[in-house]
Amino acid sequence: MNKKLPSACLAVVLGTGTGYVLDAFAQVKPDTLVKQRQASMILQSKYFYGGLRPMAQGKRPYDAAVASRNIAFLESLSKMAWDSFTPDTKDEKSRALPAVWEQPAKFKEAGDRFQSEVTKLVAVSKSGDEAAIKAQILAVDKTCSACHDDFRSK
Amino acid sequence: MNKKLPSACLAVVLGTGTGYVLDAFAQVKPDTLVKQRQASMILQSKYFYGGLRPMAQGKRPYDAAVASRNIAFLESLSKMAWDSFTPDTKDEKSRALPAVWEQPAKFKEAGDRFQSEVTKLVAVSKSGDEAAIKAQILAVDKTCSACHDDFRSK
Repeated sequence: MNKKLPSACLAVVLGTGTGYVLDAFAQVKPDTLVKQRQASMILQSKYFYGGLRPMAQGKRPYDAAVASRNIAFLESLSKMAWDSFTPDTKDEKSRALPAVWEQPAKFKEAGDRFQSEVTKLVAVSKSGDEAAIKAQILAVDKTCSACHDDFRSK
Repeated sequence: MNKKLPSACLAVVLGTGTGYVLDAFAQVKPDTLVKQRQASMILQSKYFYGGLRPMAQGKRPYDAAVASRNIAFLESLSKMAWDSFTPDTKDEKSRALPAVWEQPAKFKEAGDRFQSEVTKLVAVSKSGDEAAIKAQILAVDKTCSACHDDFRSK
C-alpha cells in the first residue's frame, strides 16, 4: 500500500458492496467507465507484459532503470481499474465476463491478490536484488492470469 | 521529479530526437502506440478533469484524500504518453495534429511544461495547503489546454 495515501487507497480498495466505490459526485457514464478500466489495462500491459515480464522471463535484457520506472507506474496503475467495474457497466461491450458481477467477492479477492503482489514487488524493487525482483514479477504475472482466466473472455 | 527514479524519468522525459524514446526492444505497432497514449489521456482525464479540476474550481466539495490520491496517480500518468508519439504513428487515426511531428521541439516544450507543473503540484500536495493545491491544479490545467489547443484537433 502506498505509504503516502493509506486512507484514500483503503477507500478505493475496500469500498463497499462489491468492494469498489466511485468518488462521490462522479456520475460517470457506463461506456466511459468501460473505457477508463480498459485504459488502465492497456497501460498495465504496456509496462508489465511489454516490459517487466519479458525481462523477468529472460526474453529481454534486464534494465534496472526501466524496471524501477515500470514498477512505480504499475503501483499506480494497479489501483485504477477497480472502481470502474460498476454494475451499470455489465451490459456494455467489453471482455469482462458476467462473473465479475455474479461473483463480486471472488472478483474482489482476485483484484486484491494482484494488488498485494504488486505491493510486494514495489518493496522488493527497492532492494535492487535483480533475482528477487524477477521472481516477484512472475508472482504478479500469475495473479494477472488468474483474474483473466476467471473474469475475462478469451 | 519522482525522487525514487531520477535516471529513469530523465531518460523518458529527455530522450533523444523528438525528445521521446521507447524502451529498447519494444517494437510496438503504431496502432498499439496510439491506444497506449490515448489510454494515458483517458486516465488523466478521469483523475484530473473528473476529480481535481472540479474540486479546484469549487464545482465539487474538496476531498483531501481523493485529491492526494489523484495527484499521486497523475504524477505517474503524466509521464506515460510521450514515448508513444513516435513518427510512425502520424498516419494513424487519432486527434493528434500534424504539428506534433512538424514542430517536435514545441511539442516537447508543451509536454515538459505540463510535467513541470505536475511536479510542482506533487510538491504542493504534500504541504496539505488546500488553497495552494487548488491554485496549482489550475496551473496544471492551463498546460493541458495549451497543449491541446496546439496539438490536438477539436
